[in-house]
Amino acid sequence: MTEFISKIRTIEWVDTYSKMVDQTKFPDAFEYVKITTGQDMFDAIKTMIVRGAPAIGIAGAHGVVLYAQELAKQNLPHSEFIKQLLAKADYMASARPTAVNLMWAVEKQKELIRNSSSDIAVLIEDLKANGKKLELEDIEINKKIGDYGAEVVPKGATILTHCNAGALATVGYGTALGVVRSAFAKDNTVQVFADETRPRQQGARITTLELTMDGIPVTLITDGMCSYFMKKGMIDMVCVGADRIAANGDAANKIGTYTVAIAAKYHNIPFYVAAPLSTIDTSIKSGDEIIIEERSHDEVTHINGKPICANGVNIINPGFDVTPNELITGIITEKGILRPDYKKSIMEVFR
Amino acid sequence: MTEFISKIRTIEWVDTYSKMVDQTKFPDAFEYVKITTGQDMFDAIKTMIVRGAPAIGIAGAHGVVLYAQELAKQNLPHSEFIKQLLAKADYMASARPTAVNLMWAVEKQKELIRNSSSDIAVLIEDLKANGKKLELEDIEINKKIGDYGAEVVPKGATILTHCNAGALATVGYGTALGVVRSAFAKDNTVQVFADETRPRQQGARITTLELTMDGIPVTLITDGMCSYFMKKGMIDMVCVGADRIAANGDAANKIGTYTVAIAAKYHNIPFYVAAPLSTIDTSIKSGDEIIIEERSHDEVTHINGKPICANGVNIINPGFDVTPNELITGIITEKGILRPDYKKSIMEVFR
Repeated sequence: MTEFISKIRTIEWVDTYSKMVDQTKFPDAFEYVKITTGQDMFDAIKTMIVRGAPAIGIAGAHGVVLYAQELAKQNLPHSEFIKQLLAKADYMASARPTAVNLMWAVEKQKELIRNSSSDIAVLIEDLKANGKKLELEDIEINKKIGDYGAEVVPKGATILTHCNAGALATVGYGTALGVVRSAFAKDNTVQVFADETRPRQQGARITTLELTMDGIPVTLITDGMCSYFMKKGMIDMVCVGADRIAANGDAANKIGTYTVAIAAKYHNIPFYVAAPLSTIDTSIKSGDEIIIEERSHDEVTHINGKPICANGVNIINPGFDVTPNELITGIITEKGILRPDYKKSIMEVFR
Repeated sequence: MTEFISKIRTIEWVDTYSKMVDQTKFPDAFEYVKITTGQDMFDAIKTMIVRGAPAIGIAGAHGVVLYAQELAKQNLPHSEFIKQLLAKADYMASARPTAVNLMWAVEKQKELIRNSSSDIAVLIEDLKANGKKLELEDIEINKKIGDYGAEVVPKGATILTHCNAGALATVGYGTALGVVRSAFAKDNTVQVFADETRPRQQGARITTLELTMDGIPVTLITDGMCSYFMKKGMIDMVCVGADRIAANGDAANKIGTYTVAIAAKYHNIPFYVAAPLSTIDTSIKSGDEIIIEERSHDEVTHINGKPICANGVNIINPGFDVTPNELITGIITEKGILRPDYKKSIMEVFR
């Protein structure tokens, strides 16, 4: 199989800091920022300088290293160092509540911290190495997801996606857009329809940018248009990412995903979720248990700092919604495509 | 029944010109403009200074008067005056293709023109009077729609609407929001959820403005959020307007309406279309025959003049979609609520 070469590397540990693409600058600029403190990393995650479930997992792992570097300068007793670092790690994991990958990656660092020897310098090197390992694993996992997913992409397919589950939501390559990249490498008549994804417009700002950078044809549509194009027979499959998947296959993803899934079902169009196994949270039975982040009202009422609605309007701004398992055709993972009954197939893949 | 008093009058003929609210200025300003020439009226309709199917019907009728005033200054022979005015009327009717009300109202003026006596001054007075009559009829029709619709609004209901089918889409009062106004007059615990309605954001810019002006509680949501709130049990009914309804009940309305209708069906939430009988085009059998306006790509790629996506992205920008009759619970008209089988109920109401 031809391998697709992407130009994009979203996040990378460099010596003593984390280097990442500043995703709040899209589509105006494609710029890298250095994140040098734990608090700056917390803020970068919260304000979505870095976003996408797998990418914020890596960011969280890097954040723990940054805190370790800072605490090491205070010459604390070892037990106090460990205690404070674990507390900082928990704080880092709380930057955003919905994506489980953040908790998962921070937990990987916490395991190292809890089992560390008394040499703090060694621990810091171990944490760095672990962050690096998670980065490389993420890319490898995405390529596997891409290759499994490409098998279910019809020849010449138009794939609708929502939000950005691309190279820029991961370390590189992408989950849903990893499927697109692998399919495009085999068949360059594959193309993408990208939902704008209000309120934060990740589809418009990020998905169109990364696909045009990589030379994959992309059509931008507003969120309400998906059914129009489905009815016209212009969409062959839907593929989206996920922020957390419950043990029964219910999948939380960016707000608006559930609406697309219902439209796909109505038109008998396959709806796939592409996500690494680290996104699956087997500790929760169903999507009802997933905490949905409430985000700032400004995201809905303002665009580029300018109000788009009347004063005095009420706002509720859930960042995510949950697509119930009955609407999901398959969950594309690095271990293959999980199919219904998901309770069973998820249990088996973790056995 | 308590009557709801709205503050809003969208369009009105005054002596020799048409006075209308400039809807491109929302939400920054609520300003009136004078339209004094036929070409300015054509442009006002095309650029959506005035919009909403019933309102652009009235605007078209006024536009014909403006052209008649202009042509009268040229001292043409009567037959030449009539010929040129009919051509101008056809041009006016072509300003936007989807809403049938524009063609309908212009046709009402054309009937007067075709049957006019030789006195041009009399004809112009007749055209003005006819425009005025259509204005007043529109408000009366909307109040009747509102009163019929209010009967199916549950106590304390939250009504989801898409785009703006309000006072600002009509001469005053509104169709879908006329239902809201009549329901609110009976029960002030009724409230509205308004879809933003990308690309032109009529829900955000117009619906939130007119409802807050009239003191009716309104929550603004992005288009993708509708299913989230439906699943939470926070939406009791959907009520939208229409731009053209076929003889079988298929209803064209602002792009995104069809997606909301599918979501409503999935959640077993009643979905009503509120529209005057002039919106029903019995000359077409089904929604497949409705011409969907393709609008400028800028509406999708830019917000407030600023690009929101990468260069080189493809755009398709249909202004409307068609909701098939099977998703519509009832069509609320000035003659009562039409129910399936619509082919039958529509035929009966026009008998």
